Amino acid sequence: MHRLRVALVQVNSVVGDLDGNVARVRSALPEVAGCDLAVFPEMVLTGYPLEDLVLKPRFVAESRDAVEQLAAESGDCTLLLGFADPGPDGQVHNAVAVCRGGTVHGVYHKRQLPNYSVFDEARHFDAGTEPLELFRIGGAKVGVTICEDLWVDDGPIDRLVEGGAELLVTVNGSPYHQGKLARREATIVATAASSGRPLAYVNLVGGQDELVFDGGSMVADPAGRIVARAPRFDEAIVVVDVDAPEVPPGDGDLPVVDVSGTVAWPDHAIPPPVQPLDPLAEVYAALVVATRDYVQKSGFTDVCLGLSGGVDSALVATIAADALGPEHVHAVLMPSRYSSDHSVADAEALVAEQGLDERTIPIEDAHVALRGLLEPAVGEHGDGLMDENLQARIRGVLLMALANAHGWLVLTTGNKSEAAVGYSTLYGDTAGAYASIKDVYKTTVYELCRWRNVQSVHAGGGPLIPDSILAKPPSAELRPDQRDDQSLPPYDVLDPLLEAYIEGDRTRAELVAAGFDADLVDRVARMVDQAEYKRRQTPHGATVTSKGFGRDRRLPVVNRYRG
Amino acid sequence: MHRLRVALVQVNSVVGDLDGNVARVRSALPEVAGCDLAVFPEMVLTGYPLEDLVLKPRFVAESRDAVEQLAAESGDCTLLLGFADPGPDGQVHNAVAVCRGGTVHGVYHKRQLPNYSVFDEARHFDAGTEPLELFRIGGAKVGVTICEDLWVDDGPIDRLVEGGAELLVTVNGSPYHQGKLARREATIVATAASSGRPLAYVNLVGGQDELVFDGGSMVADPAGRIVARAPRFDEAIVVVDVDAPEVPPGDGDLPVVDVSGTVAWPDHAIPPPVQPLDPLAEVYAALVVATRDYVQKSGFTDVCLGLSGGVDSALVATIAADALGPEHVHAVLMPSRYSSDHSVADAEALVAEQGLDERTIPIEDAHVALRGLLEPAVGEHGDGLMDENLQARIRGVLLMALANAHGWLVLTTGNKSEAAVGYSTLYGDTAGAYASIKDVYKTTVYELCRWRNVQSVHAGGGPLIPDSILAKPPSAELRPDQRDDQSLPPYDVLDPLLEAYIEGDRTRAELVAAGFDADLVDRVARMVDQAEYKRRQTPHGATVTSKGFGRDRRLPVVNRYRG
Repeated sequence: MHRLRVALVQVNSVVGDLDGNVARVRSALPEVAGCDLAVFPEMVLTGYPLEDLVLKPRFVAESRDAVEQLAAESGDCTLLLGFADPGPDGQVHNAVAVCRGGTVHGVYHKRQLPNYSVFDEARHFDAGTEPLELFRIGGAKVGVTICEDLWVDDGPIDRLVEGGAELLVTVNGSPYHQGKLARREATIVATAASSGRPLAYVNLVGGQDELVFDGGSMVADPAGRIVARAPRFDEAIVVVDVDAPEVPPGDGDLPVVDVSGTVAWPDHAIPPPVQPLDPLAEVYAALVVATRDYVQKSGFTDVCLGLSGGVDSALVATIAADALGPEHVHAVLMPSRYSSDHSVADAEALVAEQGLDERTIPIEDAHVALRGLLEPAVGEHGDGLMDENLQARIRGVLLMALANAHGWLVLTTGNKSEAAVGYSTLYGDTAGAYASIKDVYKTTVYELCRWRNVQSVHAGGGPLIPDSILAKPPSAELRPDQRDDQSLPPYDVLDPLLEAYIEGDRTRAELVAAGFDADLVDRVARMVDQAEYKRRQTPHGATVTSKGFGRDRRLPVVNRYRG
Repeated sequence: MHRLRVALVQVNSVVGDLDGNVARVRSALPEVAGCDLAVFPEMVLTGYPLEDLVLKPRFVAESRDAVEQLAAESGDCTLLLGFADPGPDGQVHNAVAVCRGGTVHGVYHKRQLPNYSVFDEARHFDAGTEPLELFRIGGAKVGVTICEDLWVDDGPIDRLVEGGAELLVTVNGSPYHQGKLARREATIVATAASSGRPLAYVNLVGGQDELVFDGGSMVADPAGRIVARAPRFDEAIVVVDVDAPEVPPGDGDLPVVDVSGTVAWPDHAIPPPVQPLDPLAEVYAALVVATRDYVQKSGFTDVCLGLSGGVDSALVATIAADALGPEHVHAVLMPSRYSSDHSVADAEALVAEQGLDERTIPIEDAHVALRGLLEPAVGEHGDGLMDENLQARIRGVLLMALANAHGWLVLTTGNKSEAAVGYSTLYGDTAGAYASIKDVYKTTVYELCRWRNVQSVHAGGGPLIPDSILAKPPSAELRPDQRDDQSLPPYDVLDPLLEAYIEGDRTRAELVAAGFDADLVDRVARMVDQAEYKRRQTPHGATVTSKGFGRDRRLPVVNRYRG
C-alpha cells in the first residue's frame, strides 16, 4: 500500500489571464508544500473554455511559458498544472504538466475531445496520441487524465489501469447543471470500483460567460466510496491521504517516469465533511457565483437593474446583493402609466429590506414624447405591441444611460420561460450585459425566492423578497390589467412542456404522445422556434439546466422547420 | 470515351423547409429530364448549414422521406440529391442519394467533416466509413463526394480514382468570401488535371444567416480546363456534355452500382460563357443576395433603416433597394440637434434619386424628455458618452417602433471597422434584425458606393449615392462638430491593421514587425478585444471576408488576454 498526501486545489481561473492564473496557483503553493501531489483543475493556467483564443499562437506559447515559470518554482510537492500546449507543427493540446523540483517531468495530452453540447474541443485542440506513461509520485504509479478521458468507455483510463497505474487522477473543467453532480459521482465511483484504484477528481470553480463550474472535487477509494470532498462553488484546498494498492509489475506495464519517492506519513489527513447542497441551494449558489464572476471578471463592481415589483427582478436583485453586496446593487424603479401602486410599493419594500441603492424614474414624459414623435408615422398602428415595446425600450435606454453615467453593469431580469417563448422586448428588458436567471424557468424562479426567504428567516432576518411579490399574478404591466396568462399558458403547464421540448429535444409527436395538448404543443413550439432571432441578440447568462440557450443549443435564425 | 450530359443545378434552398426544397428540386426536373445526370448542391433538401436542427431526429427522418419522395418521381435522368441521412443507431450523415427510375440506387456519406471556421460538422454529423463504390451513370463510372472530401490530401477522391472512377462529381455548400473562388477553382483544376478525370462541381446559392453561398458551379476537363460555368449568386441550371475517359478494369477496382447506360448524344451541349465578376461586383452581389434572402426567407417583404446622410446607411439603403425594390425600403431620417443641414439634404437627395419611401422624425423632443428624466440621477455624468448613446438609442427605439407598427424588418447600418473597434451604440445603431454590411470595412464601403454609382451611370442613370455623401468626412454627429477621426485612426490606417489582426490572426509582435505603430496596435487590439460583448448582441450579417465576426471568430466575452 502506498499512502499519498494529495491536495485537491479548486481554483477560480480567469480566461486569458495568464499572469493572474500563475499568481492564483502560486498563492496555493505554501499550503500544498507538505503534500506529495497537488492537483489543479483543467487548464488552470489559461482559464477554460478558451474558445478561439486557442487560435492565437502567441497565447498558446505564453501558456507554455507559464508552466515553465511555475515548474521552476516547484519544490517537493508534485504539481499537476493544466495549460494549452503548443505542438511542433501548429498543434495545440489540452494538456497537464507534471512539475516538481524545478522542472517539468512530463506532459499528458487529453485524448478524448468533447465536441457536443457546450463543448467545441474538436475545433480547438488536437487529441493526444503519444504513448501513455505513468508517473511515480510519492512512490505510487500515477495515471493522469483530463476530463472527457474519464467519460468514455474503453478510453485511456482502462489502458492506464492495465498498464500498472496504482492511483488515477483526473483534472476537469466540468460545467454545472442541475443533476450533473449525481452523474459525475456515479462515473467516478464506478471507475474507482471497477478498476480497484483510488481516483482523485479535481474540478474548476467559478463563472465564465455562459458556464459556471461548481468545483465539488472528490476522491473515491478502490471500493468506490467517496473519502474526500471539496466544497462546491467556492475555491478550496482539500488535503487528503489516499491509500493506493501496490500493483506488482506485469508484462503490459506502461513506462514509468520517476518524479518523487515514498514519504512515511506519520498521521492520516482526513478532510472535514462537506454538507451536500439541496437542489435549490445548488442552483442559487450557481447563480450567485456566475453573476459575481461575470461582473468582477469584467472589471466592474456595481450593477443596476430595473426593479418592477415582479418576481423576476426581485430574484435578480437578491442574487446580485448576495453576489456583490447590497450597496453595489442599484435598483431602478421606472413606473409607467400602467404600473400598479402595489408594484411600486413591493419594489420599495424589497429595496428597504435588503438595503439596496435605489432611484425612481417614472417613464411617462419619455413615453409621451416618443408617442408624439411616432404618431404621424404610425397612427392607429401605435397601440398594442408597439406601445408595449416602447415602454420596455424606454426602460432599457434609461438603464443603459445610468450604466454609462456611473460605470455600472446592467443585469437583465428575464427568465428561461420568457426567453423560450420570446415573451420579452429586444433592446428593452433584454438590454444589458448579463442575464442572471436566463436559464431559470419561471416556476423555479418562485421556488428560489421562497427558498432564499426561508434561509433569511432561519438566519434571523425577515423575508428578503416580500410575500406580496410572490403572491400576485405575474404581469408585464405594459397595458391596463395585463397578466402573463393572457398571452401564455399558466407557467405550471408551460414550463414542463418547454423543458421537454428544449432540454429533452422531444418532437411534436412525442410531446403529444406524452400527454401534452396538441394545439398547445404546436403553439409553444412555434413560439420557441420563432424567438431564436431574439435570443441571438441577448446577453450571456449562466447555464443551470441540462440545455441552456446559447452555445448549448445552436439553431439557425432563418429556419422554416416546424416539427 | 463516355459522353455524359450533365446538369449543374444551383438551387437556393431554405433551411428547414423540406416541403419547399422538394418543390424547388421538382421544379427543375422538366429541364433536366433529357440529361444523364443532374447534380444538386450539398444538403439541397434540408438547406445548409442546419446547425442543431440535425439533433432533432424527426427532422432527419423527414429529410430521408423527402429523398424517397423525389426518388419515386425520378425518371431517366439520375438525380444526386443532398440530405441528412439517419443511421440505425442515431447517427446522422451528411449524404447524397443517387436516384433514378423511381428508386434510390445508393447513398454516399461525407467522409471529411470540416470543424473549423464557420463549420461545426463534427458536432452534427458522423463521418461516412462504409466501403466506397462507384455508380455507372450514362455508361461511365462516377465517383460521388461531398464538399470537404475534395479539399483534403489523400482523401476519398484519390481512392475513387484508384478504384476506377471515370467522372468525379462533388456537391457543395461552400460559403462565399473574397478570394474564395480562386482557391476553389485552383483545387478543382488541380484535382481534375492530376487525376486525369473530369470533375463536376456544384455549389449552393443564396443567403443563410451569417453565410452567403455564391454558386459558381463548374466543370473541369481532364486537362484541367474549365469547360462550363454557372453564374454566381443566382439560381441556374447549366447543361453541359462532359467527356470522360474510359478506364479499363483493374485489380483495385471499387464495386460499381449500375444506374443508367450509355446514350448516344447526337450533338454536343456547350453552355454559354459566364462573365466573371470583378472584386467589387462580387462583394456587392453577395450583399444584395444575402440581404434579400434574410428578409424574404424570414417572411418579410419590407425593411426600414435610419438614413443619416452618411456613407454607411447610404450603402445599406442602396443594397436594400437593389435586393427588394425601392418601394420596399423605408428610409427614416431622425435628425438631432447635432445633425448638420447637409446630412439631411444628402439623405433626402438619396431618397429622391432611388425612389425610396421616406419619413422624417426629429428626435429632439424625446432627447429632451429622456435627458430631463435622467438629470436628477446622473447630473454632470449625463454629458459625453451617455448623451451620445442616448441619441443613438432613441433612433433604435423609433426604428423598432416603426417596424412593429408596419411589419417591417429593421436593417442596421454598421460596418466592420465600427463593429471591430466597438464604435457603435448597443441597442442604438446596432438594433435590428440584419446587418447588411457588418463584414465590410469602411474603406470598402466607399469603394462599393463608388462602384455602384459607376454602374448606375453606365446604365444611363445618375449616381444613386450623392457625391456629397462620399466627399464629406465621416461623422456620427452625436455631438457638435464630431468626426470619426477624433476617436479612431484614419480608416486607411485602421482597416489594414484590423484586417491583419482579425482575418490574419496576427499577434501584437507580428503586427509591429510588419510595420504598424506599436501604440496604435495596442490601442486597436484592445478596442477589438473589449468590443466582444457588443458583438455578442448584434444581429447576423453576411460574411464576405475570410473571417467574419460571429461563428467564424468565437472569442470569450470575459477574456483578459491582451496579446
